[in-house]
Amino acid sequence: GLSLCVSLRYLSSNMIVLVPQAEIDAAVQLLLKLKVDYKQMTGQDYKAGCPPSENLIVSNNGPAADDCDGEDLVDPWNVSASSTKGVDYDKLIVRFGSSKIDKELLERIEKVSGQRAHHFLRRGIFFSHRDMHQILDAYEKHKSFYLYTGRGPSSEAMHVGHLIPFIFTKWLQDVFDIPLVIQMTDDEKYLWKDLTLEECHRFTVENAKDIIACGFDVNKTFIFSDLDYMGASPQFYRNVVKVQKHVTFNQVKGIFGFTDSDCIGKISFPAIQAAPSFSSSFPQIFGGKKDVPCLIPCAIDQDPYFRMTRDVAPRIGLLKPALLHSTFFPALQGAQTKMSASDPNSSIFLTDTPKQIKNKVNKHAFSGGKDTVEEHRKYGGNTEVDVSFLYLTFFLEDDEKLEKIKEDYTSGALLTGELKKILIETLQPMIAQHQERRKQVTDEMVQQFMTPRPLNFKF
Amino acid sequence: GLSLCVSLRYLSSNMIVLVPQAEIDAAVQLLLKLKVDYKQMTGQDYKAGCPPSENLIVSNNGPAADDCDGEDLVDPWNVSASSTKGVDYDKLIVRFGSSKIDKELLERIEKVSGQRAHHFLRRGIFFSHRDMHQILDAYEKHKSFYLYTGRGPSSEAMHVGHLIPFIFTKWLQDVFDIPLVIQMTDDEKYLWKDLTLEECHRFTVENAKDIIACGFDVNKTFIFSDLDYMGASPQFYRNVVKVQKHVTFNQVKGIFGFTDSDCIGKISFPAIQAAPSFSSSFPQIFGGKKDVPCLIPCAIDQDPYFRMTRDVAPRIGLLKPALLHSTFFPALQGAQTKMSASDPNSSIFLTDTPKQIKNKVNKHAFSGGKDTVEEHRKYGGNTEVDVSFLYLTFFLEDDEKLEKIKEDYTSGALLTGELKKILIETLQPMIAQHQERRKQVTDEMVQQFMTPRPLNFKF
Repeated sequence: GLSLCVSLRYLSSNMIVLVPQAEIDAAVQLLLKLKVDYKQMTGQDYKAGCPPSENLIVSNNGPAADDCDGEDLVDPWNVSASSTKGVDYDKLIVRFGSSKIDKELLERIEKVSGQRAHHFLRRGIFFSHRDMHQILDAYEKHKSFYLYTGRGPSSEAMHVGHLIPFIFTKWLQDVFDIPLVIQMTDDEKYLWKDLTLEECHRFTVENAKDIIACGFDVNKTFIFSDLDYMGASPQFYRNVVKVQKHVTFNQVKGIFGFTDSDCIGKISFPAIQAAPSFSSSFPQIFGGKKDVPCLIPCAIDQDPYFRMTRDVAPRIGLLKPALLHSTFFPALQGAQTKMSASDPNSSIFLTDTPKQIKNKVNKHAFSGGKDTVEEHRKYGGNTEVDVSFLYLTFFLEDDEKLEKIKEDYTSGALLTGELKKILIETLQPMIAQHQERRKQVTDEMVQQFMTPRPLNFKF
Repeated sequence: GLSLCVSLRYLSSNMIVLVPQAEIDAAVQLLLKLKVDYKQMTGQDYKAGCPPSENLIVSNNGPAADDCDGEDLVDPWNVSASSTKGVDYDKLIVRFGSSKIDKELLERIEKVSGQRAHHFLRRGIFFSHRDMHQILDAYEKHKSFYLYTGRGPSSEAMHVGHLIPFIFTKWLQDVFDIPLVIQMTDDEKYLWKDLTLEECHRFTVENAKDIIACGFDVNKTFIFSDLDYMGASPQFYRNVVKVQKHVTFNQVKGIFGFTDSDCIGKISFPAIQAAPSFSSSFPQIFGGKKDVPCLIPCAIDQDPYFRMTRDVAPRIGLLKPALLHSTFFPALQGAQTKMSASDPNSSIFLTDTPKQIKNKVNKHAFSGGKDTVEEHRKYGGNTEVDVSFLYLTFFLEDDEKLEKIKEDYTSGALLTGELKKILIETLQPMIAQHQERRKQVTDEMVQQFMTPRPLNFKF
């Protein structure tokens, strides 16, 4: 193959050349091998005309390198763990280059906010961060910041896992008393899914109701649909274009694994998720101020967007956003994967009845217990893989009660059925109350939250 | 290099490998050569994991293949002709797959409009079209259409060549009495040039004044800056996203010659130039109607954008725009290239004084005359390459006078200096009148033209 290639090298591109398929195939195979070798040697994708950069250490950056033995796959569209315990989050911190939320940071958050840390923080559900100390440094010097989180509205149905960032964001907003912007990426869902623009926008409005039902204050919170806000804010679009000018296809290919067959909408979308990280995207809230720091609470799978954003920010004269990363909310079937809105049995939905909740937990929640009551009494259950217990770490706020459940289940004193009953009795009123609050959310309230307007803060 | 690469092939990507720079370089060189070979053998860019398609014939598709012997290079950013006569437009029609504006179409335009065809049409300056017959068919059945043209505001200074599409568009608007939208692609200029957003937006406003000075009716014309209108019209953004979902990177690579090193803003920009082709992008003008046909008068180098648009339109349930293509306005130095706003001596600027016009034409206008008066009298001059004569075909409306000049110059009766004098005396009052009209254009008028609003038409 090689010599053939070389011998054809000087043919003019005007000429019509017919080459046997077998020879083409051989050349392609050789090229493919060389490209893999190149990547493994340099840690970088092969790019014509660009020698590899100085850093010759092979590192596991980006999704392309994630599908090898024993590695967890984590990007905005895929999460799968190699172990039944789920994703190895300590490894992820190293791979993503973020920082662990350690005891010192926890204590600082408590000191600065004057509040006990949220149980999501105490229990390592929010486990990783970027630049949280800088946010606190500034806050101590009376320099405020704002919160930015979001949701991709791919269906009407949200499950309890979707609430995690919003529950936590609400807590942050309450203890720090700061503005919050919530991006509904209906344009993203249109680009990625087989949905119409109208469907995606309708899901935005329906999902916004569930988000509002978490108790956000309309005077402090702006929820926006990309499809609407992009066409309602020249400043937002200007920040999108700024990011788009400073990120190449090579970069998004490396970060998100995009290919040449992806549509140009997907390729440029990361800039749209980046733009709300900059206060100048919301002149109605920040009065045109460019330097209000941004803190983004999100699940760790969204980090690639913000690694990109943080890389671009200084080059366009804007501040890098800080981040707080959460673990994934496990599917009922086990901690290897995220819940899926498309499989009704993988999740507890916010629309589920008490009976549905009971049935789903009893039928589908993966158990860390033993096969028989006798064995369970003797050896005890494993809370590290038991989904019912994992769910309680999210939703049972009482630390002592949770500790007692852990002890009893581990010792065998508590049976799987009893553990499931505790979860059911925790979820049923929680979901019922959510449904009650959601019923109170009128279309007018949604419209109020989604209208670009000043919030009750001065900047 | 090669054997080293292969031997490293099975290393795990977890391992840390340090490879000497020289060996990396050798491998890179080999890969580079192989990629070139691959492209020459298959006519396609090398892409990992994708064997070349069935079509093994190397063909001249798209800009990547256009820089070979004897071919004119024509894309939105480059125009260069291989002949001193300029671009071979008949070949371009075949290559682009458009249709020639023939005698029959000319006569139909005159019949339907009830007006004598504009001299740009009579003289083949607008020489090519797509679907113009359909526009006229519909118009005859009292189904109206709208005009869309645009300008990339890369500097404050516009030259006379920039006026061609606007002069012609004004004529079309007058004879058909239809709405007109004019896109100022300030976002494009920001993405492509070393300019700030503020500069690009300022050029938009300055250039809009020159466009308005062509005499457009504010009640029938909407001029918009992308940077503003994208952030002011959710319907416009929706059409942009629709196009972005249905065009892949492979496609824009083929059409525009983008590479992996291009920024994601460039890659997705073609959708923004496509969107004004759809009447639903302007609900304020068309009352939400999706099916008002669009006619785009533009220079032929913009055709790639609209080939793409016409390819996408039926897939998103919208109408293909029709087109009228013009030839390029030649630089003073000769017909091989377009005028350049960055070289002051390549063009007559709209800000030039009578004296500057005189000097530029006398000094820089490429002559088709002979070296000496004696030779010129004997053999005559060549109007096909004489820039002064070419300019007169654009700006001297009187057909008989132009024909007489051609005869006299070809016979040698008219000397180059005399021909230049005729051009100078044509341009001086034309530019002076333009400057006078531009002075009348106030900031308020610009703002009026650029405000999204209904026009004086019912749809």
